[in-house]
Amino acid sequence: MTQSRLTHLDMAGHARMVDVSAKPATQRKAVACGEILMASRTLDMIQSGDMPKGDVYATARIAGIMAAKKTADLIPLCHPLSLSSISVDFAAGNDKVVITAVVTTTGATGVEIEALAAVSVAALTLYDMCKAVDRGMQIDNIRLLHKSGGQSGEYNAE
Amino acid sequence: MTQSRLTHLDMAGHARMVDVSAKPATQRKAVACGEILMASRTLDMIQSGDMPKGDVYATARIAGIMAAKKTADLIPLCHPLSLSSISVDFAAGNDKVVITAVVTTTGATGVEIEALAAVSVAALTLYDMCKAVDRGMQIDNIRLLHKSGGQSGEYNAE
Amino acid sequence: MTQSRLTHLDMAGHARMVDVSAKPATQRKAVACGEILMASRTLDMIQSGDMPKGDVYATARIAGIMAAKKTADLIPLCHPLSLSSISVDFAAGNDKVVITAVVTTTGATGVEIEALAAVSVAALTLYDMCKAVDRGMQIDNIRLLHKSGGQSGEYNAE
Amino acid sequence: MTQSRLTHLDMAGHARMVDVSAKPATQRKAVACGEILMASRTLDMIQSGDMPKGDVYATARIAGIMAAKKTADLIPLCHPLSLSSISVDFAAGNDKVVITAVVTTTGATGVEIEALAAVSVAALTLYDMCKAVDRGMQIDNIRLLHKSGGQSGEYNAE
Amino acid sequence: MTQSRLTHLDMAGHARMVDVSAKPATQRKAVACGEILMASRTLDMIQSGDMPKGDVYATARIAGIMAAKKTADLIPLCHPLSLSSISVDFAAGNDKVVITAVVTTTGATGVEIEALAAVSVAALTLYDMCKAVDRGMQIDNIRLLHKSGGQSGEYNAE
Amino acid sequence: MTQSRLTHLDMAGHARMVDVSAKPATQRKAVACGEILMASRTLDMIQSGDMPKGDVYATARIAGIMAAKKTADLIPLCHPLSLSSISVDFAAGNDKVVITAVVTTTGATGVEIEALAAVSVAALTLYDMCKAVDRGMQIDNIRLLHKSGGQSGEYNAE
Repeated sequence: MTQSRLTHLDMAGHARMVDVSAKPATQRKAVACGEILMASRTLDMIQSGDMPKGDVYATARIAGIMAAKKTADLIPLCHPLSLSSISVDFAAGNDKVVITAVVTTTGATGVEIEALAAVSVAALTLYDMCKAVDRGMQIDNIRLLHKSGGQSGEYNAE
Repeated sequence: MTQSRLTHLDMAGHARMVDVSAKPATQRKAVACGEILMASRTLDMIQSGDMPKGDVYATARIAGIMAAKKTADLIPLCHPLSLSSISVDFAAGNDKVVITAVVTTTGATGVEIEALAAVSVAALTLYDMCKAVDRGMQIDNIRLLHKSGGQSGEYNAE
Repeated sequence: MTQSRLTHLDMAGHARMVDVSAKPATQRKAVACGEILMASRTLDMIQSGDMPKGDVYATARIAGIMAAKKTADLIPLCHPLSLSSISVDFAAGNDKVVITAVVTTTGATGVEIEALAAVSVAALTLYDMCKAVDRGMQIDNIRLLHKSGGQSGEYNAE
Repeated sequence: MTQSRLTHLDMAGHARMVDVSAKPATQRKAVACGEILMASRTLDMIQSGDMPKGDVYATARIAGIMAAKKTADLIPLCHPLSLSSISVDFAAGNDKVVITAVVTTTGATGVEIEALAAVSVAALTLYDMCKAVDRGMQIDNIRLLHKSGGQSGEYNAE
Repeated sequence: MTQSRLTHLDMAGHARMVDVSAKPATQRKAVACGEILMASRTLDMIQSGDMPKGDVYATARIAGIMAAKKTADLIPLCHPLSLSSISVDFAAGNDKVVITAVVTTTGATGVEIEALAAVSVAALTLYDMCKAVDRGMQIDNIRLLHKSGGQSGEYNAE
Repeated sequence: MTQSRLTHLDMAGHARMVDVSAKPATQRKAVACGEILMASRTLDMIQSGDMPKGDVYATARIAGIMAAKKTADLIPLCHPLSLSSISVDFAAGNDKVVITAVVTTTGATGVEIEALAAVSVAALTLYDMCKAVDRGMQIDNIRLLHKSGGQSGEYNAE
């Protein structure tokens, strides 16, 4: 990467939505992930308790999908995009839930913020649904895993 | 804490917005924080570069404040609340920016999700503004620091 | 009921949001229901197919709950309200799914539109999820079942 | 129609926004209708009373048009689309108002949910404006009349 | 008025949503107005042409009312409020339309921004509806006429 | 300009979102401006006071940019558009701040309403931030300066 300045600021340092009108619409994909750490008792209540786990993950999944669609309304300088697909998945780990989001579009800008927003809001939704039993949960390690389809080429996290 | 089940699910395990009509409106406060790790070169561009740092933090701050107000629209089972105050602050650390949000309300439910949402969206906004120069940034350690004002008493993270 | 004119129009016939500032905030409840008629094969795919039915109903439930919170943004003359609770339930009938929504608030206006909006949007979500296999579905019989808590007294559909 | 499963669920039964990136953008159209049954006295107040009927229908029409634009924000798995045109019309029948919505787009997915949402929200708006004089109104018979422009060919309700 | 600094900035000059938790909820009212100047031919088309003028004003009125409800989502540091009433009216003048909005609430902050937002968005809607025939329209003179109900006492524009 | 009627009304005078499906997507640009008049003491507090002016303009700038993206949600008959760029700038004048917005898109309709909305909401945000010290501010002279890129050719205000 060779950008020598923040493109979201103009020459005077003022925020702006950068001009993408010269960029062609191409197929783009982004994969982001993150995790929410919780007490093992909390994870048990989501995962293997006496109540169906479906609705906890299903609620967080829908929240993440809807958040990806709201990204341009949440992030001030983000371009509105017509997303082609969104999926959000959960995997229970050791005292944590790992969240992965995949977003694609055919557009002039990438969808990494959309994927990161889906992960973030899915994590916040898990926090909200479990907060009455566990206030010490922590959302961690939200990052971009993969990005492809734009001028800057493919990116894969190390 | 003595909740033995997730209150956001009914007896059949279905998601619902829990009934708070019997809870009195009290003054409530929540403080949340989180951080975004970045290359030192990226932090320099925000912090001490040749361009005014004002607009980067100012943009992320406004995004965080507006996200706190949108929380009930983002998080499916979250109650709408009339927030009394919101502030979002940034402190540059060692290859990271630490974000802190304070939210207060006079209402029937707490504002911890609002504070966590403000931190999350402020972090995503910093990611968005810096992503052209640094795709490896990571959002970390988002957690509740303090909560006061409800039936469950004061909470302070260890 | 003794209203002799539509209160949402002023004396000149112009739409307005009516003044509720003199109405006390009281506990209010509304129950609405509706149904979506579908081919029995479609209902089987939701209900007893080889894929978990959880996510179909869970998705429609979340959509209904979130729609109740968006009611004042959807219905032009509807007052914004801080809802105390929202639940949306589904019962499979004979070639149809019956949807019931219960909404409560402590406020100056009733929540019947919020309950009807939850039912309508839950039904639209079921339509959306099943439309690839059944375009002939029909949303029917959306109505208020019960309303209590305001000046106009309790209402129960016959 | 030969879909053998619900496309909005992945192989594990989890909700997702399906991938339309391989579908070409074509001109698409959907027509939906529905009705709201009401006491004849209520209909008279809208239709031929001493107050201009304009604002009742005009308000419901605007609500329906704006709802079509909000569809992707209301229906969790619905793709955002740039709509080309929206119209909503009303016809007074025998103790009912019949609502028809026509929506067009040039896009990768159909607009039947947008048309159904416009009808549903227009009906809810009529309910809201008349509820002080008639709580027994019923929203009925919301269905797709016509769909054209996608891979699945033209659809006309019988 | 004796404020010696901008209350929406903290001591470090950073934007914040100011704390209103100590302010009592009182009945408040604001009246704002503004005007849109246009060619007399344009005004004729709205006002006395061969097409019903109802829908032009009705559309702008609904847009203004809905904008008042969206104010806290539009204006970053504005507190969310449950509005008690909103009305928007139009008067045709000499080559202009004068727009007046009245908003009331029972709350901890005033509603002047809500009234000004209603006027602004109603004016933008008139512009949008007439722009194909008149691009030289100008929105002018948007100001607060009256404010009552808070600590700062009654305000009336000179 | 040769339009002889308001295109946003159908033959019966009813509001509709006009059909743009036959219009090609072209690169379009709009520039709008407006001003907010204020006491010189207020302008001093924004401009040259002892507190950083950055956050006042930065907040209004972000509000304007986000409003441009919300235009189709604010203005009932406005088409949703994927904006390519948005910038909002401020210049302090004699007892006023002049606001200029530039918006571009590649789309089937123009972006003049988006540019005017950005100016209007930026002005309302300045009003909101300064209202505690100056209630007599006035928003004035909001108009289109330039428009290019559509069938109707280039427009420049005289």
